[in-house]
Amino acid sequence: MNGAQAMVRTLADAGVTVWFANPGTSELHLVAALDEEPRARGVLCLFEGVATGAADGYGRMAPDPAAVLLHLGPGLGNGLANLHNARRGGTPVVNVVGDHATGHRRFDAPLQSDIAAMAGTVSVWTGAPERVAEAGGAAAEAVAAARAGGVATLIVPADVAWDEGGSVAAPAPAPAVRDDADLEPVIAALNGGEPCLLLIGGGATRREGLEAADRIAAATGARVLCETFPARLERGAGLPAVGRLAYLGDFAAMQLDGVRHIILAGARRPVTFFAYPGREGDLVPDGCAVHDLGAAALARLADAVAADVKPTPQPLRRPDVPDAPLTAETAAAVIGALLPEDAIVSDESNTSGLWLADATAGAPRHDWLTLTGGAIGQGLPVATGAAVACPDRPVICLESDGSAMYTISALWTHARENLNITTVVFSNGAYAILSMEMARVGATEAAPTTEGTAVKDMVDLSRPGLDFVAMATGMGVPATRARTVEEFADRFARALAEPGPHLIEIAVPPIG
Amino acid sequence: MNGAQAMVRTLADAGVTVWFANPGTSELHLVAALDEEPRARGVLCLFEGVATGAADGYGRMAPDPAAVLLHLGPGLGNGLANLHNARRGGTPVVNVVGDHATGHRRFDAPLQSDIAAMAGTVSVWTGAPERVAEAGGAAAEAVAAARAGGVATLIVPADVAWDEGGSVAAPAPAPAVRDDADLEPVIAALNGGEPCLLLIGGGATRREGLEAADRIAAATGARVLCETFPARLERGAGLPAVGRLAYLGDFAAMQLDGVRHIILAGARRPVTFFAYPGREGDLVPDGCAVHDLGAAALARLADAVAADVKPTPQPLRRPDVPDAPLTAETAAAVIGALLPEDAIVSDESNTSGLWLADATAGAPRHDWLTLTGGAIGQGLPVATGAAVACPDRPVICLESDGSAMYTISALWTHARENLNITTVVFSNGAYAILSMEMARVGATEAAPTTEGTAVKDMVDLSRPGLDFVAMATGMGVPATRARTVEEFADRFARALAEPGPHLIEIAVPPIG
Repeated sequence: MNGAQAMVRTLADAGVTVWFANPGTSELHLVAALDEEPRARGVLCLFEGVATGAADGYGRMAPDPAAVLLHLGPGLGNGLANLHNARRGGTPVVNVVGDHATGHRRFDAPLQSDIAAMAGTVSVWTGAPERVAEAGGAAAEAVAAARAGGVATLIVPADVAWDEGGSVAAPAPAPAVRDDADLEPVIAALNGGEPCLLLIGGGATRREGLEAADRIAAATGARVLCETFPARLERGAGLPAVGRLAYLGDFAAMQLDGVRHIILAGARRPVTFFAYPGREGDLVPDGCAVHDLGAAALARLADAVAADVKPTPQPLRRPDVPDAPLTAETAAAVIGALLPEDAIVSDESNTSGLWLADATAGAPRHDWLTLTGGAIGQGLPVATGAAVACPDRPVICLESDGSAMYTISALWTHARENLNITTVVFSNGAYAILSMEMARVGATEAAPTTEGTAVKDMVDLSRPGLDFVAMATGMGVPATRARTVEEFADRFARALAEPGPHLIEIAVPPIG
Repeated sequence: MNGAQAMVRTLADAGVTVWFANPGTSELHLVAALDEEPRARGVLCLFEGVATGAADGYGRMAPDPAAVLLHLGPGLGNGLANLHNARRGGTPVVNVVGDHATGHRRFDAPLQSDIAAMAGTVSVWTGAPERVAEAGGAAAEAVAAARAGGVATLIVPADVAWDEGGSVAAPAPAPAVRDDADLEPVIAALNGGEPCLLLIGGGATRREGLEAADRIAAATGARVLCETFPARLERGAGLPAVGRLAYLGDFAAMQLDGVRHIILAGARRPVTFFAYPGREGDLVPDGCAVHDLGAAALARLADAVAADVKPTPQPLRRPDVPDAPLTAETAAAVIGALLPEDAIVSDESNTSGLWLADATAGAPRHDWLTLTGGAIGQGLPVATGAAVACPDRPVICLESDGSAMYTISALWTHARENLNITTVVFSNGAYAILSMEMARVGATEAAPTTEGTAVKDMVDLSRPGLDFVAMATGMGVPATRARTVEEFADRFARALAEPGPHLIEIAVPPIG
């Protein structure tokens, strides 16, 4: 067998069967190998950022990672932003990037560039087999590295793919989950009478972690918060409620005010998302101790301090569909009122999503996928991958207009694969988050008497307006527009009732 | 003044006034500084690849480079593919990338990544001022580095932008054009009676270079070819005709067959675009000498060997609008028949563009901008930048359906800035180039009895079809569809007659 076949089969043996792909000439033997492997499924994306974001969404929801297939350095470049998000979320992704044949590199042909340097910025592991004999083994290593949590990039020279002499490698053992945290100082803190905060993230935002954290809180009086941008937060009726650390540093500082011990369970030390002139970036209050427990030790800690305590599930509690004009707030209520059982929500609604957490907290149980690395253009692709991973679950993609445009061609893959995704575009005609940040960084005062219009222009998306109904229709996704709460509720319910992709554009005023 | 103001003013003093921008929070002081600098113009793009491709198009057509404004590592990632094209074309681009404040980096906040490593893959120069006092000087250096031909990346920490204490730096001197080529061996080759080929590229594809090459050919019997993907080729009536080295290695080998001396004038040694199993990647025939003259020496060579020879301008010669079904070939004739005087053509028509070179060779004088680095998604952005650079010239963007989808949101900027761009989308419902390459790399034989459909699926764009009329309309660009030659000629003529952006989708069968 050739190297491509060896790699595709090795990946399939290791559980990696879904390939989100945007291939080029140098990857065609890998494409051909997908045809010969009955377990493999290729999902074509029209832009690499869709493929990498889909792999991120898939990896958050499925037990096995997906593969991505990208064309040389420029293809990897187009995929980097969503690989950045996967890196920050610790999502397993097997990132296969084609390269020129080994003998062709000396020519520095037009598409050549430093793939490894680019890959290094997002990858926990980078491998580049130089001979076909190494192909299968490198593929097995890539899967193992990805399963440890992150992007493993496998750079495949064209001749390594097409040469005969490949062999399938056995799956490498799954990495052991490390749990060597010393519980004693944490237990001492929890029992010490000072205000404690348990900040959960990473692997601790699923049922087990949430219940362990809730039990610890009930037993010790500690508070629990979830990291600001969890990769996958299980939520809703039947699970313990958990708030999220605020995105805005001012609000986060209020949440953390007075805390004397922060116990990190899968989360990172809290810092502000951006720096602001004259403001502290570290959100840990002065004199507050930080204990890095790790996600894996949470259950052990719960057994130690809350052995007899049961978690408190929140009841089913939905808002009513409001009788009020359509705004980001009332739209959130509609979503909370109608969110179906077992939904997966890909949330890139940004400022328009401010009310979503409350409105959906008591909805039927669901998963919430967020913008882990802050690189926008993630929502539509992550929804794509989640829908491929979980074809029996409804996927709701909550998008802001600005963010949607980075990877808008994901809609075509929604249609192509007939994915059960309902996309709601909150169209406020602005980069509203930048309007808000403009004042916060002090840039407004820097230009008090604007002669030009750059500040206004750079946050304005209304000239011309973006018609997402037309764009979605042009990519094969049935789409409608809602102008009132009633229309939105009606269209959202209908889209949820009908399998396959839908898009609903709602015009909402910018917040603030 | 603050660092942002120092940089914006330094750039303006150095001639860099147009900023293709997709900023985020960390770049807002630079946005504010654009408001305070009357010479600066911000052009908002909805995706970074549009901004970088627009800067490439601008830099190819304007005497001064444009600036790009990108948001941190993920923003740079999204812009890399078109920066790769700029790198390959040697286009001057000042690539400004915001970074977290210097004091914020230690927190490894969610959006942090290795910007310099990423930038290094596309940049001739990378600078990262760490203090506001360095801001102006770094900006001046960046412009000088870009003017030497390529992408200069200026990484700007947020505090360097917002701190007071900046000062404007004087423009650095433009780099001297190097011309130290020894003409003697080249003259000996040209006079030696063996077949010689002058391969022009880079700076030699404008009138001066074309005329010098033509004179040398007329005086010595040498043949002239242009590199496969020139950044800017001046063409049409009144200029000497020049063919291009073929993209497909087989055809290029035929063009080079029997040549004993290749004289490179701004072009690179000819190699195949991709490697193919068992095929030679170096296109230089066995025993053929290669003389690297450089673009600058061409005029000197012409004066040495063809002092009394005048260039031969080609006459105005247009095809008729054909009476035949609409195909890529007949569409090319329509374009040749109607191409307006002084047009700028951004060509990413790929396989559908096979007949364009012949059909337009004798059209009124125009510039032809091509896919210099092979990273697709360039056509619409390059057209954007060219139209901003040359508001008095009609810009024609020739796009294939697959390539158009990488940077489709460029259409919004066409509408926003009311750019005089007529986009023609050759819609063949396929990645036709991959269908063709599939056989050439031998991947078809590798999967002779396809059980799956990956090979077919990965080149198919027809399920669902892409409706570019709907997508363009959704972004504010008036659009129509043409199904016959007559309709296409009518709509193309009307679009050219009316200022502002237009899009025409034509359905054409895939070639071959």
